[in-house]
Amino acid sequence: MIRKHFAGFAASALALAVTAQAFAGTVTTDGADIVVKTKGGLEVATTDQNFSFKLGGRLQADYGTFDGFYTKNGNSADATYFRRAYLELGGTVYKDWKYQINYDFSHNSGNADDGYFDEASFSYVGFKPVVIRAGRFDQDFGLEKATSSKWVTAIERNLGYEVADWINSHENGMRLQESAVVADMAYLSSSVSSKDINDKNGKGVKQFNGRAVFAPMHDSGNVLHLGVDVAVRDLKDTSFDSRIRPRLDARGVATNGGNDAGANGNRATFGGGVGLDSGNLTANDAYDTDTVFGGEFAFARGPLSLQAEYLNRKMKADSSAYQDVKATGFYGQVAYTLTGESRVYKLDGAKFDTIKPQNKQFGAWEVFYRYDNISVDDKNVVRNSATREVGDAKASLNTIGVNWYANEAVRVSANYLKVSTDKIQNANGDDSGDAIVARVQYVF
Amino acid sequence: MIRKHFAGFAASALALAVTAQAFAGTVTTDGADIVVKTKGGLEVATTDQNFSFKLGGRLQADYGTFDGFYTKNGNSADATYFRRAYLELGGTVYKDWKYQINYDFSHNSGNADDGYFDEASFSYVGFKPVVIRAGRFDQDFGLEKATSSKWVTAIERNLGYEVADWINSHENGMRLQESAVVADMAYLSSSVSSKDINDKNGKGVKQFNGRAVFAPMHDSGNVLHLGVDVAVRDLKDTSFDSRIRPRLDARGVATNGGNDAGANGNRATFGGGVGLDSGNLTANDAYDTDTVFGGEFAFARGPLSLQAEYLNRKMKADSSAYQDVKATGFYGQVAYTLTGESRVYKLDGAKFDTIKPQNKQFGAWEVFYRYDNISVDDKNVVRNSATREVGDAKASLNTIGVNWYANEAVRVSANYLKVSTDKIQNANGDDSGDAIVARVQYVF
Amino acid sequence: MIRKHFAGFAASALALAVTAQAFAGTVTTDGADIVVKTKGGLEVATTDQNFSFKLGGRLQADYGTFDGFYTKNGNSADATYFRRAYLELGGTVYKDWKYQINYDFSHNSGNADDGYFDEASFSYVGFKPVVIRAGRFDQDFGLEKATSSKWVTAIERNLGYEVADWINSHENGMRLQESAVVADMAYLSSSVSSKDINDKNGKGVKQFNGRAVFAPMHDSGNVLHLGVDVAVRDLKDTSFDSRIRPRLDARGVATNGGNDAGANGNRATFGGGVGLDSGNLTANDAYDTDTVFGGEFAFARGPLSLQAEYLNRKMKADSSAYQDVKATGFYGQVAYTLTGESRVYKLDGAKFDTIKPQNKQFGAWEVFYRYDNISVDDKNVVRNSATREVGDAKASLNTIGVNWYANEAVRVSANYLKVSTDKIQNANGDDSGDAIVARVQYVF
Repeated sequence: MIRKHFAGFAASALALAVTAQAFAGTVTTDGADIVVKTKGGLEVATTDQNFSFKLGGRLQADYGTFDGFYTKNGNSADATYFRRAYLELGGTVYKDWKYQINYDFSHNSGNADDGYFDEASFSYVGFKPVVIRAGRFDQDFGLEKATSSKWVTAIERNLGYEVADWINSHENGMRLQESAVVADMAYLSSSVSSKDINDKNGKGVKQFNGRAVFAPMHDSGNVLHLGVDVAVRDLKDTSFDSRIRPRLDARGVATNGGNDAGANGNRATFGGGVGLDSGNLTANDAYDTDTVFGGEFAFARGPLSLQAEYLNRKMKADSSAYQDVKATGFYGQVAYTLTGESRVYKLDGAKFDTIKPQNKQFGAWEVFYRYDNISVDDKNVVRNSATREVGDAKASLNTIGVNWYANEAVRVSANYLKVSTDKIQNANGDDSGDAIVARVQYVF
Repeated sequence: MIRKHFAGFAASALALAVTAQAFAGTVTTDGADIVVKTKGGLEVATTDQNFSFKLGGRLQADYGTFDGFYTKNGNSADATYFRRAYLELGGTVYKDWKYQINYDFSHNSGNADDGYFDEASFSYVGFKPVVIRAGRFDQDFGLEKATSSKWVTAIERNLGYEVADWINSHENGMRLQESAVVADMAYLSSSVSSKDINDKNGKGVKQFNGRAVFAPMHDSGNVLHLGVDVAVRDLKDTSFDSRIRPRLDARGVATNGGNDAGANGNRATFGGGVGLDSGNLTANDAYDTDTVFGGEFAFARGPLSLQAEYLNRKMKADSSAYQDVKATGFYGQVAYTLTGESRVYKLDGAKFDTIKPQNKQFGAWEVFYRYDNISVDDKNVVRNSATREVGDAKASLNTIGVNWYANEAVRVSANYLKVSTDKIQNANGDDSGDAIVARVQYVF
Repeated sequence: MIRKHFAGFAASALALAVTAQAFAGTVTTDGADIVVKTKGGLEVATTDQNFSFKLGGRLQADYGTFDGFYTKNGNSADATYFRRAYLELGGTVYKDWKYQINYDFSHNSGNADDGYFDEASFSYVGFKPVVIRAGRFDQDFGLEKATSSKWVTAIERNLGYEVADWINSHENGMRLQESAVVADMAYLSSSVSSKDINDKNGKGVKQFNGRAVFAPMHDSGNVLHLGVDVAVRDLKDTSFDSRIRPRLDARGVATNGGNDAGANGNRATFGGGVGLDSGNLTANDAYDTDTVFGGEFAFARGPLSLQAEYLNRKMKADSSAYQDVKATGFYGQVAYTLTGESRVYKLDGAKFDTIKPQNKQFGAWEVFYRYDNISVDDKNVVRNSATREVGDAKASLNTIGVNWYANEAVRVSANYLKVSTDKIQNANGDDSGDAIVARVQYVF
């Protein structure tokens, strides 16, 4: 062992590596043996599995340009923003107690009052196979939501979730969730939440979620996945923002994290927008129970994957001054990896995961097509306005895209979107629009 | 040494640990020998003690429900929030220069203009025994404040501090502090601060703090602690928020970090609320010098600990349009560890610290009772209002609670609070209230 | 190898180091050999140079006091704030893909909508010698900007940049930049940006930057550096804040990160302030193209360094309701290291870097003098006001200062500033002012 302090040592990690062999001091621990790993981030764990620490993150830099329905005047606008910039800390203490904190430096999760958390949760894994998880995190609802935002196929998730964004969004509340893999072919989870929306006495809105997936085939490249979901929340005596305002997968029409389309971005209200006060809140007695049912399907064989989801929402009116709001959404997607890799599938979570490029030179290339459709039936809309006619507001979206997984850390994506709407239009009268969105993603 | 790159390696830290033995590469340094440690976070230090780095944090997830005086209409409200979510970075360079940054992702410390710091400070420890510390951090005042928020007995600190919250709160200013352990039985500290409140010329408000503790017995489980404190600030020519607004230990009535009781939470103004403008600021010439004296007592013997503090505040009026505001607060607490462990005590800082569970299976269990009392004498209140009568506004609070230290990282707490007030009531006329608060804490 | 778990182990890193030798467990990797380093932060890299991770930061705590033109009423004000408090994460994956995230916990970079980034970027270094960099980071323009904020000579950079702060500030946009070291004596870079300022259709303002430096002598202590810069942005159809509002190097007149001078701080508008709406925005058709040219010079010989920069801006009016705004700025600086060290110079980036103290006891001591001059010719100013006369508003600034590099991590600086202005004065009629600014800096 040769060891020596030396002045003038260049501080960069690369320089560090180059000369390390010649000037090597020892690295030991004060107790249990430890393993260290870096893939751009850092992992440290004791070999007895009692303790671990992991620091990483994800950075998604997006550029989007769009016109027609996506903007108010129909002219082309653009947007340049971080979609997600997470610092991710996680670890284990005493084997069974885990934590995970994902904090969004791009401020697209959370808000200034509640912190910009994507997630901050504890888990207890000592009651196998049940995992008990508490804290702030998005509830289970849907297949594409279960898949990490790093590895969903399109740049943004499907349109269906946008007609009921509360079903799988933490909304700065907290929850208790139990989940389990059962009989090596099913995944079950349920949770109760208290959210950062108050009833008239200051009680947080309560929500229940359940998800059950049957996946008799669940190996990567050989998947059959069938699932059902339910989410229900109690809106009794609650004044809240009831608007259904999809961005139609062009996040740049209105986003944090950088530049969006500003005042010309058209994040249109498809429903739930009638009878609100100046703060876009309903009366206290407006609605009662809000319920969403969902269905999931996926099939994969080698480099080919098919997936589809459906959801149906009903928000029941509580006051005669308000009417029920109903919405449905569905999508179907086909994806194919040109370079042959399969999408990784995990039964624990019942979800797809990354594609691991086999060719270190050229990476993996994936193409996909997705069709999205949403329909919002809001009986509160009883007269036509310049941008919204009476009847079911609908949008259908065609997306084609390509993903390049340069390596396990870097992914580059480009999507072309073509939307057309019915009973809803922008201020210029457009009922269709085009968008191109590109992303560079770095995971460490 | 066997070493090999291998594809398809699962990225999780546990998987890492399992297979590490079989595929072990070497870990060395470019200079001094290094020790690595993880207990859910990460510590790295050179064995020559010249350099070190530590990354950790604390996550406190709270749920509270409360009624009566705690809410405006007296009905039951609830709250679900992160009380603290700190990322904690600290280290040493060249042996004598240390730094510590604790950043509050839950946004309960600091604000958007000044950053959400709990602490950001440098220390120079080369002039032993004196420690010189500069930067943003809470000043020394009081025993319970000296104890880390991770290890105070009740979920929230005593009520007394709430009648003069500036005495040991950084208020987004900075300070220079000297402290020392003297003769192995005393701890002394003093600091001068410049705070983020301006006088009419834009000069930050200046504050002096002193703390002297005599602790002839200072071993864990064998403590006798007597202390005096003083804090004084100069409010001459300063327009500031003079309100005394205790949350009465039910943080959920008004908090960041998640859901609070919203508009129905009753964070009542006990004093200092007369003669303010629409921004809740005094006139420039309202007050002069604000002085607080405090006393500390603690005794511990094995699993039993007793502690009490007293403080007395006088904010002198400077203008004939304002009257003096006086306030006192005190509490007494008895705590007992059912499983036998003693509370750790540290003379450096003159403070209690954690309880280290001896039984790895069941952890440590502690019960406590605390009595709090505050009284605010505001002569500016000269006529009765619906919620505040002329005379000394008082509150007394009884708290019982239980703490489970599952291990050194996980603590679960539950407190029951019963408050009663005098000369102050909520909009519904309630002068008493109940609260239950629970916390899960994870320290890494 | 002796290895043992033991209870009651003090958690501090120093205690860790002390006892580490006696209780040493092994540290290995799951793959490639790794080198670990700490200098207060942490670096981990594989010896094959494929992967690395570095976590560090900078903390700059400033105190300033100032009077005359620096305040509105001319009286002395003060300020205590964090100028920068960065958490810095960087790393490498698969050798050629790098990332860097510098996040400003003091909130002086970025804003609540876009995140508080100093930088978040990816680089691809596989096309040597060209480095391709994308994301959010400040564009190349000027020598002093190229130098890290940790190692610029004065506490704040030169005044010239303040008359065109968009030229080398990310303004929450993103960019693509190519740079290269050519023929071992030149550095070239160019970038295209889309910024977080929208034109009337919601398109981000586009900007081009170029920088070319010829440095035939480029060793530390032996430097000859000549450079030219250009920045141009398209303001057509854009409503934006056109004000030129230098802080004249007394950041405390208006800053985030702590206490500033509040309402009495005088951040005066030298130009671009006529014809704005209540949000300080121009009309959409106000200006057209905004162009800045710059020149750089530096010379260093041993402990002596000279540097100077010049810039010239022209913002062309597009509407007859607006007039052109022109501005120039220049400075000259001489610095001398009393203890003999040279300022480090790096051709890659064409910039000065740190001074590495040779004497570990007393550190390095540097003194400097800088003369700054700016002039703003705004033809929109057509009548005198109380604080701004018709004609070119000018400021000249004399700064003397001393820097103590206590070691490679700790730097203490003090600057004395004397400013005098022409055609612009504070509300009290002062056209000169004094300031003292001090900083403690900790780099880890």
